[in-house]
Amino acid sequence: MHILMNVDPTPSAIPGIRHATLAGSAQGLQQLSIWSQVLEPGAATPPHRHDCDEVLLCSGGRGVFRLEGHKPRVFGANTTVCIPRNALHEIANAGEVPLRFVAVFGSAPVAPQLPDGTPIDLPWSS
Amino acid sequence: MHILMNVDPTPSAIPGIRHATLAGSAQGLQQLSIWSQVLEPGAATPPHRHDCDEVLLCSGGRGVFRLEGHKPRVFGANTTVCIPRNALHEIANAGEVPLRFVAVFGSAPVAPQLPDGTPIDLPWSS
Repeated sequence: MHILMNVDPTPSAIPGIRHATLAGSAQGLQQLSIWSQVLEPGAATPPHRHDCDEVLLCSGGRGVFRLEGHKPRVFGANTTVCIPRNALHEIANAGEVPLRFVAVFGSAPVAPQLPDGTPIDLPWSS
Repeated sequence: MHILMNVDPTPSAIPGIRHATLAGSAQGLQQLSIWSQVLEPGAATPPHRHDCDEVLLCSGGRGVFRLEGHKPRVFGANTTVCIPRNALHEIANAGEVPLRFVAVFGSAPVAPQLPDGTPIDLPWSS
């Protein structure tokens, strides 16, 4: 059984992205990874996809969500963003304050890929 | 694409449990269900299990988590509780104020069972 005190996201090797893994493989989970992240103003994820559902639970800031084949959409605190399995997507901070969210994935670990299929070597565990 | 304003949990058919489904089958998810719940003081889930991982993200109050074969453990705000797939478990409010958490499941929908294997007919969608 694992009951963990949440840790605050800390700077990662990806510029402008702070990260903390709240739960995942290290806790014996096989189907879930939970990340707490902060994107600084101006920061963005690369365009990427993964073979699992993802849900973002946004708690602060203003983000823009880009999903292949759709118009960009803005989201903010107290919203939930559902990202279909294998859909190419990108998340950016669209505001002047840190964008804060919990990202939930339907697999552990998470194996993101760039648009050309190149695996992304994540700088954190999942 | 689904970007949803979170709704506050509202009273359910289970006494003392307020519930809101933040994301799940209705948004086309196949691997994730996300619930926002509040257990009033004195309220508890029945003992149950489900064939998927679960993670609780607690944001307020004081809960007690009972997992088959383990001593009860207390948890509170800013903690993450990892519940192994198929493990018999129970969550109760152990304090004087509402216990608030987001429950994340590694399947959509979620199919909980009582200890004897009887399916629990949930009073909400997942």
